[in-house]
Amino acid sequence: MMAKRRYMKKMGRACKALGLMMAVVMTCAIQAQELSNGWSEADSAMVAYIHAQILGKGQCYEDLRVLCKDVGARLSGSVQADAAILWGAKTLEEIGAAAVRMQPVVVPHWDRGGKERAWMRVDGGDPEPLRIAALGGSVGTDGTVEAEVAVFRDFDELDSLGAEGLAGRIAFFNRPMDPLTINAGNAYGGAYEQRSRGAVEAAEHGGVAALVRSLTHALDTFPHTGGMRYDDAVRQVPAAAVSTVDARRIAGLVADGHEVKVGLEMGCVLHGEKTQANVIAEWTGTEHPDRFIVVGGHLDSWDIGEGAHDDGAGIVQSIEVLRSLHALGYRPRHTLRVVLFINEENGNNGGKTYAQRARERGEWHVAAVESDAGGDAPRGFSIDATDDATDAVRAWREDFMDYGVGDMRRGGAGVDIGPLKKEEPAGKRPLMVGLRPNSQRYFDYHHSDRDVFENVHERELKLGAAALTSMVYMLDQLDYDAIDGNQD
Amino acid sequence: MMAKRRYMKKMGRACKALGLMMAVVMTCAIQAQELSNGWSEADSAMVAYIHAQILGKGQCYEDLRVLCKDVGARLSGSVQADAAILWGAKTLEEIGAAAVRMQPVVVPHWDRGGKERAWMRVDGGDPEPLRIAALGGSVGTDGTVEAEVAVFRDFDELDSLGAEGLAGRIAFFNRPMDPLTINAGNAYGGAYEQRSRGAVEAAEHGGVAALVRSLTHALDTFPHTGGMRYDDAVRQVPAAAVSTVDARRIAGLVADGHEVKVGLEMGCVLHGEKTQANVIAEWTGTEHPDRFIVVGGHLDSWDIGEGAHDDGAGIVQSIEVLRSLHALGYRPRHTLRVVLFINEENGNNGGKTYAQRARERGEWHVAAVESDAGGDAPRGFSIDATDDATDAVRAWREDFMDYGVGDMRRGGAGVDIGPLKKEEPAGKRPLMVGLRPNSQRYFDYHHSDRDVFENVHERELKLGAAALTSMVYMLDQLDYDAIDGNQD
Repeated sequence: MMAKRRYMKKMGRACKALGLMMAVVMTCAIQAQELSNGWSEADSAMVAYIHAQILGKGQCYEDLRVLCKDVGARLSGSVQADAAILWGAKTLEEIGAAAVRMQPVVVPHWDRGGKERAWMRVDGGDPEPLRIAALGGSVGTDGTVEAEVAVFRDFDELDSLGAEGLAGRIAFFNRPMDPLTINAGNAYGGAYEQRSRGAVEAAEHGGVAALVRSLTHALDTFPHTGGMRYDDAVRQVPAAAVSTVDARRIAGLVADGHEVKVGLEMGCVLHGEKTQANVIAEWTGTEHPDRFIVVGGHLDSWDIGEGAHDDGAGIVQSIEVLRSLHALGYRPRHTLRVVLFINEENGNNGGKTYAQRARERGEWHVAAVESDAGGDAPRGFSIDATDDATDAVRAWREDFMDYGVGDMRRGGAGVDIGPLKKEEPAGKRPLMVGLRPNSQRYFDYHHSDRDVFENVHERELKLGAAALTSMVYMLDQLDYDAIDGNQD
Repeated sequence: MMAKRRYMKKMGRACKALGLMMAVVMTCAIQAQELSNGWSEADSAMVAYIHAQILGKGQCYEDLRVLCKDVGARLSGSVQADAAILWGAKTLEEIGAAAVRMQPVVVPHWDRGGKERAWMRVDGGDPEPLRIAALGGSVGTDGTVEAEVAVFRDFDELDSLGAEGLAGRIAFFNRPMDPLTINAGNAYGGAYEQRSRGAVEAAEHGGVAALVRSLTHALDTFPHTGGMRYDDAVRQVPAAAVSTVDARRIAGLVADGHEVKVGLEMGCVLHGEKTQANVIAEWTGTEHPDRFIVVGGHLDSWDIGEGAHDDGAGIVQSIEVLRSLHALGYRPRHTLRVVLFINEENGNNGGKTYAQRARERGEWHVAAVESDAGGDAPRGFSIDATDDATDAVRAWREDFMDYGVGDMRRGGAGVDIGPLKKEEPAGKRPLMVGLRPNSQRYFDYHHSDRDVFENVHERELKLGAAALTSMVYMLDQLDYDAIDGNQD
């Protein structure tokens, strides 16, 4: 009986008592909110309503299905990215709360081309098929390349061979993500340079190509792509990822003294630049229309899988922020911008352009919030801000813990909002916050064919949207004149 | 480079410097530990080693594979439960740290029999197959039963029909788990009575059977079984679960005015009692050999799926506590007992018997820890203890947060260890702690064909084992003479 009564009470509160509730929130929230305190009663009520709204009526999971299944993978420059931009604008417009516009962004247009195949040959035997994924930005092979593989754990090991020590061979960077690091994102960070810089290091030592062990804790047969860069001064060689299963096999064979040759045929093409757009929904603030709170994720994805966790989840959660606050009758104090950034994966030109335009217009971004760490169960937030601002947010820890998101620590908040930090005038450093979901499964999917809608959990996605919305609401309650916005 | 250096440093610390480390821990831990403080440096070091040991070399995932694939589902009384008990004893013995024994426990032996099928018939049409799972403990149908279905959200709705208002019909209890409740375990608790008491309520109103909507947030085609009870004074009618998809269909048809009849053929049999066992590994304490810390889960499972999350995960994590502490050269101050309880699912006779024997022997259980909430990513602990003891554990929150398990709140710690609370002498209430993993996915699997090894994530399982081990280690550092052990 209790359960039902609780249920009806909650539904009743969420559906029927909105008028009263909003009056309470409107009159109490501002005066009750003081720096470094926990939530006021009005805040607690509002966060409860946000969760009831999104868990009960949220549309982010259905939005994600459409983005993944009807649009699909959407690398910057592709026609699918064009479709995603149109979908994003339409979805935001249908909410009816905000003015939606496109902000033009020049992006690179690279694609892996029609041909992508590889093989391996052990001790001069017959070729066996090898599954690869060209790294984003790689040059093609201009025909085929076949060469012996040399295995390295890091660049120091490669350096020890001397300048031409790799002559004519393929460098295979095989250091796993550190299994002893608790947070999988940190383990990713520790292995990342192999992918981003492996081709340059290989070329500098006379190599003809770079292979990289996929950046994932999962032991499976999916190659994971991702961005890589060339140096202007260094010859460009092709680079591709192999699955962790294949990485173990190749490294094991080489360690046992076998000669392993790998052949590559990659049709990658850099088509040059194209103009696409950030999608921006602007909801004017009632008290500080000239101060901005941004919340967003990135609309582009890699070109394999469906970009469900990376970053379809962040996109649909950001859209849900606007939808749920609007549905609850909320009016933001500061101007709220939901931004669907373009080109995070291979250039971050969306984030850079947004920040440049903001500086040109002299906009004060009091806060910026990003969701770009997947759609798994939210656990907390990462804060990138001054000491003063960090304290203001961390004061809410116990309250957020009741919703499972009380783990708040300093750290990067997001790549898309990152450039805002550099573009702000003195004393007006934006309070930047990133949603931090459970990291353990994210890299199982990340940048691979496994990053599909089916691998996102409806309730976990919605809980993330509710956490994100609650944080945006709380940030809208802060008095930014009272927070020291100077760099620490 | 940084990442590699960190990696080597950690591995080096975990593998090579054990001697030094243990000396530090042994000499510092006890004096440094004071009530209501955070971890000492020695504690921090030890918890880091525990995590490195289990993430790097833990065997719990492989143990779970064997338990799920070689033993399988293992309901109390079954030959599979016998096999699980032998497997558990053998696995604990191979660790070599502790004396392993069987503690006899009398358990019920129920099984669903060879025949289990159902059908539905809409408006007198042809029968369509309906997938069901008899609830554990249900009587069979003694042939077949076919009757019209009446749909209820709760027992009040049924009561409103009057004493014989259900005459000759089947009661279908269709209240979903509350989607607005953040913690899925709490939502389960709010819907649970439909399954546990639905048959009694149906019979009391003249019904011929009870159907229950499966207790899960997932919308899929799997029926979820689970325990139910009869009252001695009330006629026993059969009870079964239907999937959430079928529940929606049936309720929708009835709401639209259709007559829905459901037919049941269930061969359930209660064979009587059988003697099985708790498996206990006892590792004698160096300082307080007559004071006990228990850690465990339950070895029995329901008879469908593989009991992977419920509670294979808790079993292999509890075994990992012993294995990892032994591998690290640790010697417990208090006597540590790893207990693989039998019969949690349909009687809790394992937990009751353990507590009775403990009382008969006058054993003081200073602490009891359980893992029985699945193998998903750990988030924290639930504490059932006096105020004083609760404060002592909550003082470690910030430290545990670095490992993702800082969410500590009061609440039930576990069904198996529950009876210990009632059996202890005054002033010696055990400090009870339950591991709390992410709850959002657990009921997707729980008591169904989906609760299989493949749905457990290796790293998340290991992180849970490391959190459990760290908690047991910290509880072993406490001075229980200084903690008020009286009931609050």
